[in-house]
Amino acid sequence: MTTEWDRQTAVTDLGGGAFGAELADGWRVGGGINGGYLLATIGRALGEVTKKQDPLSVSAYYVGASHPGAAQIRTRVVRDGGSVATMGAELWQDDEQRITVLASYGDLGRLSDDVRTTAPPMGLPPREECISNEHAPAHIRAIAPLMDRFEMLFDPACIGWAMGEPSGQGELRAWFRLADERDPDPISLLMVCDALPPVTFDLGLFGWAPTIELTVHVRARPAPGWLQVRHATRNLAGGMFEEDCEVWDEAGRLVAQSRQLARTPRPA
Amino acid sequence: MTTEWDRQTAVTDLGGGAFGAELADGWRVGGGINGGYLLATIGRALGEVTKKQDPLSVSAYYVGASHPGAAQIRTRVVRDGGSVATMGAELWQDDEQRITVLASYGDLGRLSDDVRTTAPPMGLPPREECISNEHAPAHIRAIAPLMDRFEMLFDPACIGWAMGEPSGQGELRAWFRLADERDPDPISLLMVCDALPPVTFDLGLFGWAPTIELTVHVRARPAPGWLQVRHATRNLAGGMFEEDCEVWDEAGRLVAQSRQLARTPRPA
Repeated sequence: MTTEWDRQTAVTDLGGGAFGAELADGWRVGGGINGGYLLATIGRALGEVTKKQDPLSVSAYYVGASHPGAAQIRTRVVRDGGSVATMGAELWQDDEQRITVLASYGDLGRLSDDVRTTAPPMGLPPREECISNEHAPAHIRAIAPLMDRFEMLFDPACIGWAMGEPSGQGELRAWFRLADERDPDPISLLMVCDALPPVTFDLGLFGWAPTIELTVHVRARPAPGWLQVRHATRNLAGGMFEEDCEVWDEAGRLVAQSRQLARTPRPA
Repeated sequence: MTTEWDRQTAVTDLGGGAFGAELADGWRVGGGINGGYLLATIGRALGEVTKKQDPLSVSAYYVGASHPGAAQIRTRVVRDGGSVATMGAELWQDDEQRITVLASYGDLGRLSDDVRTTAPPMGLPPREECISNEHAPAHIRAIAPLMDRFEMLFDPACIGWAMGEPSGQGELRAWFRLADERDPDPISLLMVCDALPPVTFDLGLFGWAPTIELTVHVRARPAPGWLQVRHATRNLAGGMFEEDCEVWDEAGRLVAQSRQLARTPRPA
Protein backbone atom coordinates (compact mmCIF):
# COMPACT_ATOMS: atom_id res chain seq x y z
CA MET A 1 0.00 0.00 0.00
CA THR A 2 1.25 3.47 -0.87
CA THR A 3 0.37 6.18 1.60
CA GLU A 4 -1.17 9.50 0.64
CA TRP A 5 2.10 11.24 1.57
CA ASP A 6 4.17 9.06 -0.76
CA ARG A 7 1.75 9.61 -3.64
CA GLN A 8 1.57 13.38 -3.12
CA THR A 9 5.35 13.87 -3.00
CA ALA A 10 6.14 11.53 -5.91
CA VAL A 11 8.50 12.84 -8.59
CA THR A 12 9.17 11.57 -12.12
CA ASP A 13 12.67 11.63 -13.58
CA LEU A 14 12.58 13.65 -16.81
CA GLY A 15 16.31 13.32 -17.48
CA GLY A 16 18.99 16.00 -17.41
CA GLY A 17 18.50 16.59 -13.68
CA ALA A 18 14.85 17.60 -14.13
CA PHE A 19 11.90 16.01 -12.34
CA GLY A 20 8.16 16.34 -12.78
CA ALA A 21 5.82 16.70 -9.80
CA GLU A 22 2.07 17.11 -9.39
CA LEU A 23 1.50 19.51 -6.50
CA ALA A 24 -1.48 18.28 -4.49
CA ASP A 25 -4.50 20.50 -3.91
CA GLY A 26 -4.70 18.84 -0.50
CA TRP A 27 -1.70 20.85 0.72
CA ARG A 28 -3.29 24.19 -0.13
CA VAL A 29 -3.47 26.82 2.58
CA GLY A 30 -5.11 30.12 1.72
CA GLY A 31 -3.89 31.29 -1.68
CA GLY A 32 -0.78 29.12 -1.79
CA ILE A 33 0.63 25.71 -1.03
CA ASN A 34 2.35 24.79 2.22
CA GLY A 35 6.05 25.60 1.91
CA GLY A 36 7.13 22.55 3.89
CA TYR A 37 5.30 20.17 1.55
CA LEU A 38 6.97 21.89 -1.42
CA LEU A 39 10.36 21.57 0.27
CA ALA A 40 9.84 17.86 0.94
CA THR A 41 8.87 17.28 -2.70
CA ILE A 42 12.02 19.08 -3.84
CA GLY A 43 13.95 17.08 -1.23
CA ARG A 44 12.65 13.86 -2.71
CA ALA A 45 13.89 14.89 -6.17
CA LEU A 46 17.32 15.75 -4.71
CA GLY A 47 17.42 12.29 -3.12
CA GLU A 48 17.22 10.83 -6.64
CA VAL A 49 20.24 12.84 -7.79
CA THR A 50 22.78 11.52 -5.29
CA LYS A 51 23.48 8.21 -3.62
CA LYS A 52 23.70 10.10 -0.32
CA GLN A 53 20.22 9.29 0.83
CA ASP A 54 19.40 11.72 3.65
CA PRO A 55 19.05 15.52 3.74
CA LEU A 56 21.43 16.99 6.34
CA SER A 57 20.70 20.65 5.60
CA VAL A 58 18.24 22.20 3.16
CA SER A 59 17.85 25.97 2.61
CA ALA A 60 14.96 27.35 0.58
CA TYR A 61 14.26 30.87 -0.66
CA TYR A 62 10.62 31.37 -1.61
CA VAL A 63 10.32 33.84 -4.50
CA GLY A 64 6.69 33.26 -5.51
CA ALA A 65 3.59 31.33 -4.44
CA SER A 66 2.91 27.92 -6.00
CA HIS A 67 -0.48 26.49 -6.96
CA PRO A 68 -1.84 22.95 -7.26
CA GLY A 69 -0.93 21.13 -10.46
CA ALA A 70 2.11 20.32 -12.55
CA ALA A 71 5.53 21.63 -11.54
CA GLN A 72 9.09 20.98 -12.60
CA ILE A 73 12.07 20.59 -10.28
CA ARG A 74 15.46 21.33 -11.86
CA THR A 75 18.46 20.05 -9.95
CA ARG A 76 22.23 20.46 -10.25
CA VAL A 77 25.16 18.94 -8.38
CA VAL A 78 27.57 21.44 -6.82
CA ARG A 79 29.90 18.80 -5.36
CA ASP A 80 29.36 15.11 -4.67
CA GLY A 81 32.43 13.61 -3.05
CA GLY A 82 33.41 12.29 0.35
CA SER A 83 30.56 11.85 2.80
CA VAL A 84 28.49 14.88 1.75
CA ALA A 85 26.85 15.89 -1.54
CA THR A 86 25.90 19.53 -2.07
CA MET A 87 23.25 20.34 -4.65
CA GLY A 88 21.01 23.10 -5.93
CA ALA A 89 17.37 22.87 -7.01
CA GLU A 90 14.66 25.13 -8.36
CA LEU A 91 10.92 24.60 -8.45
CA TRP A 92 9.30 26.03 -11.60
CA GLN A 93 5.64 26.46 -12.47
CA ASP A 94 4.27 28.19 -15.60
CA ASP A 95 7.81 29.11 -16.67
CA GLU A 96 8.40 31.00 -13.42
CA GLN A 97 10.82 30.07 -10.68
CA ARG A 98 8.92 29.77 -7.38
CA ILE A 99 11.53 28.36 -4.99
CA THR A 100 15.31 28.13 -5.12
CA VAL A 101 17.15 25.69 -2.88
CA LEU A 102 20.62 24.62 -1.72
CA ALA A 103 21.09 21.36 0.13
CA SER A 104 23.67 18.98 1.56
CA TYR A 105 22.87 15.27 1.71
CA GLY A 106 24.65 12.47 3.53
CA ASP A 107 23.97 9.21 5.31
CA LEU A 108 22.43 9.77 8.75
CA GLY A 109 22.78 6.07 9.47
CA ARG A 110 26.55 6.35 9.35
CA LEU A 111 26.86 9.12 11.92
CA SER A 112 28.45 8.41 15.28
CA ASP A 113 26.31 7.47 18.29
CA ASP A 114 27.77 10.33 20.30
CA VAL A 115 24.71 12.31 21.48
CA ARG A 116 25.26 15.19 23.91
CA THR A 117 22.07 17.16 23.33
CA THR A 118 21.60 19.75 26.08
CA ALA A 119 18.23 20.98 24.76
CA PRO A 120 15.50 19.72 27.08
CA PRO A 121 12.72 17.60 25.49
CA MET A 122 9.61 19.71 25.21
CA GLY A 123 7.54 17.47 27.47
CA LEU A 124 4.13 17.78 25.86
CA PRO A 125 1.13 16.64 27.91
CA PRO A 126 -0.25 13.18 27.01
CA ARG A 127 -2.02 13.17 23.64
CA GLU A 128 -5.45 12.58 25.20
CA GLU A 129 -5.09 15.93 27.04
CA CYS A 130 -4.20 17.86 23.86
CA ILE A 131 -6.50 19.70 21.42
CA SER A 132 -6.86 18.09 18.00
CA ASN A 133 -6.86 20.08 14.75
CA GLU A 134 -10.07 18.15 14.01
CA HIS A 135 -11.82 20.74 16.17
CA ALA A 136 -10.91 23.63 13.84
CA PRO A 137 -14.01 25.48 12.57
CA ALA A 138 -15.35 24.44 9.17
CA HIS A 139 -14.56 27.83 7.57
CA ILE A 140 -10.90 27.44 8.58
CA ARG A 141 -10.71 23.89 7.27
CA ALA A 142 -12.20 25.09 3.98
CA ILE A 143 -9.32 27.50 3.31
CA ALA A 144 -6.71 25.14 4.79
CA PRO A 145 -7.36 21.64 3.41
CA LEU A 146 -3.82 20.74 4.48
CA MET A 147 -5.28 20.10 7.94
CA ASP A 148 -6.70 16.83 6.60
CA ARG A 149 -3.18 15.62 5.77
CA PHE A 150 -2.14 15.05 9.38
CA GLU A 151 -3.18 14.80 12.98
CA MET A 152 -1.97 17.72 15.06
CA LEU A 153 -2.66 17.71 18.80
CA PHE A 154 -1.95 21.10 20.38
CA ASP A 155 -0.60 21.61 23.87
CA PRO A 156 -3.52 23.30 25.70
CA ALA A 157 -1.04 25.78 27.22
CA CYS A 158 -0.52 27.50 23.85
CA ILE A 159 -3.80 27.08 21.97
CA GLY A 160 -5.48 30.15 23.53
CA TRP A 161 -5.24 31.99 20.18
CA ALA A 162 -7.90 29.60 18.80
CA MET A 163 -10.29 30.96 21.44
CA GLY A 164 -9.27 34.60 20.96
CA GLU A 165 -6.80 34.58 23.85
CA PRO A 166 -3.24 34.25 22.50
CA SER A 167 -0.65 33.70 25.22
CA GLY A 168 1.68 36.37 23.84
CA GLN A 169 4.68 34.13 24.46
CA GLY A 170 5.38 33.41 20.80
CA GLU A 171 5.32 29.64 21.08
CA LEU A 172 3.26 26.75 19.64
CA ARG A 173 3.66 23.08 20.56
CA ALA A 174 1.91 20.01 19.17
CA TRP A 175 2.01 16.28 18.61
CA PHE A 176 2.17 15.46 14.89
CA ARG A 177 1.48 12.41 12.72
CA LEU A 178 0.86 12.12 8.98
CA ALA A 179 -2.41 10.69 7.59
CA ASP A 180 -2.46 6.91 7.06
CA GLU A 181 -0.27 6.76 10.20
CA ARG A 182 2.64 7.14 7.80
CA ASP A 183 5.83 7.06 9.89
CA PRO A 184 8.21 10.04 9.68
CA ASP A 185 11.46 9.92 7.73
CA PRO A 186 14.18 12.50 7.02
CA ILE A 187 12.32 13.84 3.95
CA SER A 188 8.98 14.26 5.71
CA LEU A 189 10.75 16.23 8.48
CA LEU A 190 11.34 18.97 5.87
CA MET A 191 7.56 19.41 5.82
CA VAL A 192 6.99 18.98 9.55
CA CYS A 193 9.20 22.03 10.25
CA ASP A 194 6.65 24.19 8.42
CA ALA A 195 3.38 22.40 9.20
CA LEU A 196 2.14 24.18 12.33
CA PRO A 197 0.32 27.52 12.02
CA PRO A 198 2.62 30.56 12.05
CA VAL A 199 3.96 31.19 15.56
CA THR A 200 2.62 34.74 15.20
CA PHE A 201 -0.87 33.33 15.94
CA ASP A 202 0.29 33.07 19.56
CA LEU A 203 1.09 36.81 19.45
CA GLY A 204 -2.43 37.63 18.22
CA LEU A 205 -1.23 38.32 14.68
CA PHE A 206 -3.38 36.25 12.33
CA GLY A 207 -3.07 35.68 8.61
CA TRP A 208 -0.53 34.32 6.20
CA ALA A 209 3.13 34.83 7.13
CA PRO A 210 5.06 34.51 3.85
CA THR A 211 8.40 32.75 4.28
CA ILE A 212 11.45 34.51 2.86
CA GLU A 213 13.96 31.79 3.83
CA LEU A 214 13.71 28.42 5.56
CA THR A 215 16.63 26.18 6.54
CA VAL A 216 16.08 22.72 8.00
CA HIS A 217 18.82 20.65 9.64
CA VAL A 218 17.90 16.98 9.86
CA ARG A 219 19.92 15.63 12.76
CA ALA A 220 18.84 11.98 13.01
CA ARG A 221 16.52 9.47 11.34
CA PRO A 222 13.27 9.67 13.29
CA ALA A 223 11.92 6.63 15.13
CA PRO A 224 8.48 5.37 13.99
CA GLY A 225 5.47 6.94 15.68
CA TRP A 226 4.43 10.40 16.79
CA LEU A 227 6.56 13.53 16.63
CA GLN A 228 6.61 16.47 19.02
CA VAL A 229 6.98 19.86 17.32
CA ARG A 230 7.65 23.30 18.75
CA HIS A 231 7.67 26.69 17.00
CA ALA A 232 9.05 29.73 18.80
CA THR A 233 10.03 33.30 17.98
CA ARG A 234 12.16 35.75 19.95
CA ASN A 235 12.60 38.65 17.56
CA LEU A 236 9.55 40.12 15.86
CA ALA A 237 10.74 43.46 14.49
CA GLY A 238 10.60 45.60 11.39
CA GLY A 239 7.77 43.58 9.85
CA MET A 240 9.70 40.29 10.01
CA PHE A 241 10.19 37.51 12.51
CA GLU A 242 12.28 34.39 12.86
CA GLU A 243 10.51 31.09 13.56
CA ASP A 244 12.60 28.37 15.16
CA CYS A 245 11.30 24.83 15.02
CA GLU A 246 12.38 21.73 16.92
CA VAL A 247 11.14 18.23 16.16
CA TRP A 248 11.56 15.37 18.63
CA ASP A 249 10.75 11.72 17.90
CA GLU A 250 9.15 9.02 20.04
CA ALA A 251 12.57 7.76 21.10
CA GLY A 252 13.24 11.16 22.73
CA ARG A 253 15.74 12.30 20.12
CA LEU A 254 15.96 15.84 18.71
CA VAL A 255 15.67 14.87 15.03
CA ALA A 256 15.33 18.24 13.28
CA GLN A 257 15.98 21.92 13.91
CA SER A 258 14.89 24.67 11.57
CA ARG A 259 14.74 28.44 11.38
CA GLN A 260 12.84 30.59 8.96
CA LEU A 261 12.65 34.32 8.30
CA ALA A 262 9.10 35.37 7.49
CA ARG A 263 7.05 38.50 7.08
CA THR A 264 4.67 39.44 9.86
CA PRO A 265 1.05 39.02 8.81
CA ARG A 266 -0.57 42.35 7.94
CA PRO A 267 -3.67 43.28 9.93
CA ALA A 268 -6.78 42.27 7.95
CA MET B 1 40.77 57.03 4.79
CA THR B 2 39.82 53.49 3.82
CA THR B 3 39.76 51.00 6.65
CA GLU B 4 41.50 47.64 6.55
CA TRP B 5 38.08 45.94 6.44
CA ASP B 6 36.95 47.89 3.38
CA ARG B 7 40.21 47.15 1.54
CA GLN B 8 40.13 43.43 2.40
CA THR B 9 36.53 42.90 1.27
CA ALA B 10 36.82 44.99 -1.91
CA VAL B 11 35.49 43.44 -5.13
CA THR B 12 36.07 44.41 -8.76
CA ASP B 13 33.26 44.21 -11.30
CA LEU B 14 34.43 41.93 -14.15
CA GLY B 15 31.14 42.15 -16.07
CA GLY B 16 28.56 39.47 -16.70
CA GLY B 17 27.76 39.18 -12.99
CA ALA B 18 31.33 38.18 -12.09
CA PHE B 19 33.52 39.94 -9.54
CA GLY B 20 37.18 39.62 -8.64
CA ALA B 21 38.36 39.53 -5.03
CA GLU B 22 41.75 39.20 -3.34
CA LEU B 23 41.28 37.04 -0.25
CA ALA B 24 43.41 38.48 2.55
CA ASP B 25 46.03 36.35 4.30
CA GLY B 26 45.10 38.30 7.42
CA TRP B 27 41.81 36.34 7.70
CA ARG B 28 43.56 32.98 7.70
CA VAL B 29 42.76 30.57 10.53
CA GLY B 30 44.55 27.24 10.54
CA GLY B 31 44.54 25.77 7.03
CA GLY B 32 41.70 27.90 5.70
CA ILE B 33 40.14 31.34 5.67
CA ASN B 34 37.43 32.49 8.04
CA GLY B 35 34.05 31.60 6.56
CA GLY B 36 32.40 34.77 7.82
CA TYR B 37 34.95 36.98 6.05
CA LEU B 38 34.36 35.03 2.84
CA LEU B 39 30.60 35.43 3.23
CA ALA B 40 30.92 39.19 3.76
CA THR B 41 33.08 39.49 0.63
CA ILE B 42 30.47 37.55 -1.38
CA GLY B 43 27.81 39.73 0.27
CA ARG B 44 29.57 42.84 -0.95
CA ALA B 45 29.56 41.52 -4.53
CA LEU B 46 25.84 40.74 -4.25
CA GLY B 47 25.25 44.30 -3.07
CA GLU B 48 26.66 45.48 -6.42
CA VAL B 49 24.17 43.34 -8.36
CA THR B 50 20.95 44.82 -6.99
CA LYS B 51 19.79 48.26 -5.93
CA LYS B 52 18.42 46.63 -2.77
CA GLN B 53 21.31 47.57 -0.56
CA ASP B 54 21.09 45.38 2.56
CA PRO B 55 21.33 41.62 3.06
CA LEU B 56 18.19 40.33 4.80
CA SER B 57 19.08 36.63 4.66
CA VAL B 58 22.20 34.92 3.33
CA SER B 59 22.71 31.12 3.24
CA ALA B 60 26.11 29.63 2.44
CA TYR B 61 27.12 26.03 1.79
CA TYR B 62 30.86 25.49 2.17
CA VAL B 63 32.08 22.81 -0.23
CA GLY B 64 35.85 23.36 0.00
CA ALA B 65 38.43 25.41 1.91
CA SER B 66 39.66 28.69 0.40
CA HIS B 67 43.19 30.09 0.54
CA PRO B 68 44.62 33.62 0.45
CA GLY B 69 44.87 35.18 -3.01
CA ALA B 70 42.73 35.76 -6.07
CA ALA B 71 39.17 34.48 -6.18
CA GLN B 72 36.18 34.98 -8.44
CA ILE B 73 32.59 35.53 -7.31
CA ARG B 74 29.93 34.62 -9.87
CA THR B 75 26.48 36.01 -9.20
CA ARG B 76 23.03 35.53 -10.72
CA VAL B 77 19.66 37.14 -10.10
CA VAL B 78 16.83 34.75 -9.26
CA ARG B 79 14.19 37.46 -8.89
CA ASP B 80 14.51 41.20 -8.37
CA GLY B 81 11.11 42.79 -8.00
CA GLY B 82 9.01 44.36 -5.27
CA SER B 83 10.88 45.03 -2.03
CA VAL B 84 13.15 41.96 -2.06
CA ALA B 85 15.81 40.72 -4.51
CA THR B 86 16.81 37.05 -4.38
CA MET B 87 20.17 36.07 -5.84
CA GLY B 88 22.67 33.26 -6.06
CA ALA B 89 26.47 33.45 -5.85
CA GLU B 90 29.44 31.12 -6.00
CA LEU B 91 33.00 31.69 -4.87
CA TRP B 92 35.57 30.04 -7.16
CA GLN B 93 39.31 29.58 -6.70
CA ASP B 94 41.64 27.67 -9.02
CA ASP B 95 38.65 26.60 -11.16
CA GLU B 96 36.98 24.96 -8.17
CA GLN B 97 33.79 26.05 -6.50
CA ARG B 98 34.44 26.65 -2.78
CA ILE B 99 31.19 28.21 -1.53
CA THR B 100 27.68 28.39 -2.95
CA VAL B 101 25.22 30.97 -1.68
CA LEU B 102 21.59 32.08 -1.86
CA ALA B 103 20.55 35.48 -0.55
CA SER B 104 17.69 37.93 -0.28
CA TYR B 105 18.44 41.65 -0.16
CA GLY B 106 16.19 44.57 0.71
CA ASP B 107 16.28 47.96 2.36
CA LEU B 108 16.55 47.69 6.15
CA GLY B 109 16.03 51.45 6.42
CA ARG B 110 12.51 51.10 5.04
CA LEU B 111 11.30 48.54 7.58
CA SER B 112 8.69 49.50 10.13
CA ASP B 113 9.68 50.69 13.60
CA ASP B 114 7.59 47.98 15.23
CA VAL B 115 10.04 46.15 17.53
CA ARG B 116 8.66 43.46 19.84
CA THR B 117 11.82 41.49 20.53
CA THR B 118 11.31 39.15 23.49
CA ALA B 119 14.91 37.85 23.49
CA PRO B 120 16.71 39.34 26.49
CA PRO B 121 19.87 41.36 25.78
CA MET B 122 22.88 39.27 26.74
CA GLY B 123 24.08 41.72 29.38
CA LEU B 124 27.85 41.33 29.06
CA PRO B 125 29.97 42.67 31.91
CA PRO B 126 31.62 46.08 31.25
CA ARG B 127 34.45 45.84 28.69
CA GLU B 128 37.13 46.59 31.28
CA GLU B 129 36.14 43.40 33.14
CA CYS B 130 36.35 41.21 30.01
CA ILE B 131 39.30 39.22 28.65
CA SER B 132 40.84 40.55 25.43
CA ASN B 133 41.90 38.31 22.54
CA GLU B 134 45.22 40.22 22.80
CA HIS B 135 46.09 37.83 25.62
CA ALA B 136 45.97 34.76 23.35
CA PRO B 137 49.29 32.84 23.36
CA ALA B 138 51.73 33.62 20.54
CA HIS B 139 51.49 30.10 19.04
CA ILE B 140 47.71 30.53 18.72
CA ARG B 141 48.02 33.95 17.15
CA ALA B 142 50.53 32.53 14.66
CA ILE B 143 48.01 30.05 13.26
CA ALA B 144 45.10 32.47 13.55
CA PRO B 145 46.21 35.86 12.21
CA LEU B 146 42.53 36.79 11.93
CA MET B 147 42.74 37.71 15.62
CA ASP B 148 44.57 40.90 14.58
CA ARG B 149 41.57 41.98 12.52
CA PHE B 150 39.37 42.82 15.50
CA GLU B 151 39.13 43.37 19.23
CA MET B 152 37.24 40.61 20.99
CA LEU B 153 36.63 40.92 24.73
CA PHE B 154 35.37 37.67 26.24
CA ASP B 155 32.91 37.43 29.08
CA PRO B 156 35.02 35.94 31.93
CA ALA B 157 32.13 33.54 32.71
CA CYS B 158 32.76 31.57 29.51
CA ILE B 159 36.49 31.87 28.84
CA GLY B 160 37.48 28.96 31.11
CA TRP B 161 38.39 26.86 28.04
CA ALA B 162 41.39 29.16 27.46
CA MET B 163 42.72 28.05 30.87
CA GLY B 164 41.87 24.37 30.36
CA GLU B 165 38.56 24.59 32.22
CA PRO B 166 35.70 24.76 29.71
CA SER B 167 32.33 25.49 31.34
CA GLY B 168 30.57 22.68 29.47
CA GLN B 169 27.55 24.91 28.85
CA GLY B 170 28.16 25.33 25.13
CA GLU B 171 28.19 29.11 25.12
CA LEU B 172 30.64 31.91 24.24
CA ARG B 173 30.00 35.63 24.67
CA ALA B 174 32.16 38.61 23.71
CA TRP B 175 32.31 42.28 22.86
CA PHE B 176 33.43 42.79 19.25
CA ARG B 177 34.85 45.66 17.19
CA LEU B 178 36.72 45.67 13.88
CA ALA B 179 40.28 47.03 13.57
CA ASP B 180 40.56 50.77 12.81
CA GLU B 181 37.44 51.12 14.99
CA ARG B 182 35.51 50.50 11.79
CA ASP B 183 31.81 50.70 12.64
CA PRO B 184 29.60 47.70 11.87
CA ASP B 185 27.20 47.62 8.93
CA PRO B 186 24.84 44.96 7.54
CA ILE B 187 27.61 43.39 5.41
CA SER B 188 30.16 43.16 8.23
CA LEU B 189 27.54 41.40 10.38
CA LEU B 190 27.81 38.45 7.95
CA MET B 191 31.38 38.05 9.23
CA VAL B 192 30.65 38.80 12.88
CA CYS B 193 28.31 35.79 13.03
CA ASP B 194 31.30 33.52 12.35
CA ALA B 195 34.13 35.41 14.07
CA LEU B 196 34.21 33.91 17.55
CA PRO B 197 35.99 30.58 18.16
CA PRO B 198 33.77 27.51 17.63
CA VAL B 199 31.32 27.15 20.52
CA THR B 200 32.65 23.61 20.92
CA PHE B 201 35.69 25.12 22.70
CA ASP B 202 33.38 25.65 25.67
CA LEU B 203 32.61 21.89 25.58
CA GLY B 204 36.32 21.03 25.70
CA LEU B 205 36.40 20.05 22.02
CA PHE B 206 39.24 21.94 20.39
CA GLY B 207 40.23 22.22 16.75
CA TRP B 208 38.66 23.33 13.53
CA ALA B 209 34.90 22.85 13.19
CA PRO B 210 34.19 22.88 9.44
CA THR B 211 30.93 24.62 8.56
CA ILE B 212 28.51 22.72 6.33
CA GLU B 213 25.88 25.46 6.17
CA LEU B 214 25.56 28.97 7.62
CA THR B 215 22.51 31.24 7.36
CA VAL B 216 22.59 34.82 8.64
CA HIS B 217 19.48 36.98 9.08
CA VAL B 218 20.33 40.67 9.32
CA ARG B 219 17.45 42.22 11.23
CA ALA B 220 18.45 45.89 11.54
CA ARG B 221 21.22 48.29 10.56
CA PRO B 222 23.61 48.29 13.52
CA ALA B 223 24.31 51.48 15.44
CA PRO B 224 27.94 52.69 15.45
CA GLY B 225 30.19 51.31 18.19
CA TRP B 226 30.74 47.97 19.85
CA LEU B 227 28.74 44.80 19.23
CA GLN B 228 27.84 42.05 21.69
CA VAL B 229 28.02 38.55 20.25
CA ARG B 230 26.86 35.20 21.63
CA HIS B 231 27.40 31.69 20.25
CA ALA B 232 25.44 28.79 21.72
CA THR B 233 24.75 25.15 20.89
CA ARG B 234 22.04 22.83 22.21
CA ASN B 235 22.40 19.75 20.05
CA LEU B 236 25.82 18.20 19.62
CA ALA B 237 25.11 14.75 18.20
CA GLY B 238 26.27 12.37 15.50
CA GLY B 239 29.48 14.29 14.86
CA MET B 240 27.67 17.55 14.10
CA PHE B 241 26.39 20.52 16.05
CA GLU B 242 24.37 23.64 15.43
CA GLU B 243 25.83 26.99 16.40
CA ASP B 244 23.35 29.81 16.99
CA CYS B 245 24.67 33.35 17.03
CA GLU B 246 23.05 36.56 18.18
CA VAL B 247 24.53 40.02 17.61
CA TRP B 248 23.33 43.07 19.55
CA ASP B 249 24.40 46.65 18.85
CA GLU B 250 25.22 49.53 21.19
CA ALA B 251 21.65 50.82 20.91
CA GLY B 252 20.44 47.56 22.48
CA ARG B 253 18.92 46.18 19.29
CA LEU B 254 19.16 42.53 18.16
CA VAL B 255 20.70 43.21 14.73
CA ALA B 256 21.58 39.71 13.49
CA GLN B 257 20.70 36.08 14.15
CA SER B 258 22.47 33.16 12.55
CA ARG B 259 22.62 29.41 12.71
CA GLN B 260 25.20 27.09 11.26
CA LEU B 261 25.55 23.33 11.01
CA ALA B 262 29.15 22.27 11.55
CA ARG B 263 31.17 19.15 12.10
CA THR B 264 32.45 18.46 15.59
CA PRO B 265 36.24 18.84 15.80
CA ARG B 266 37.98 15.46 15.80
CA PRO B 267 40.22 14.74 18.78
CA ALA B 268 43.82 15.66 17.92
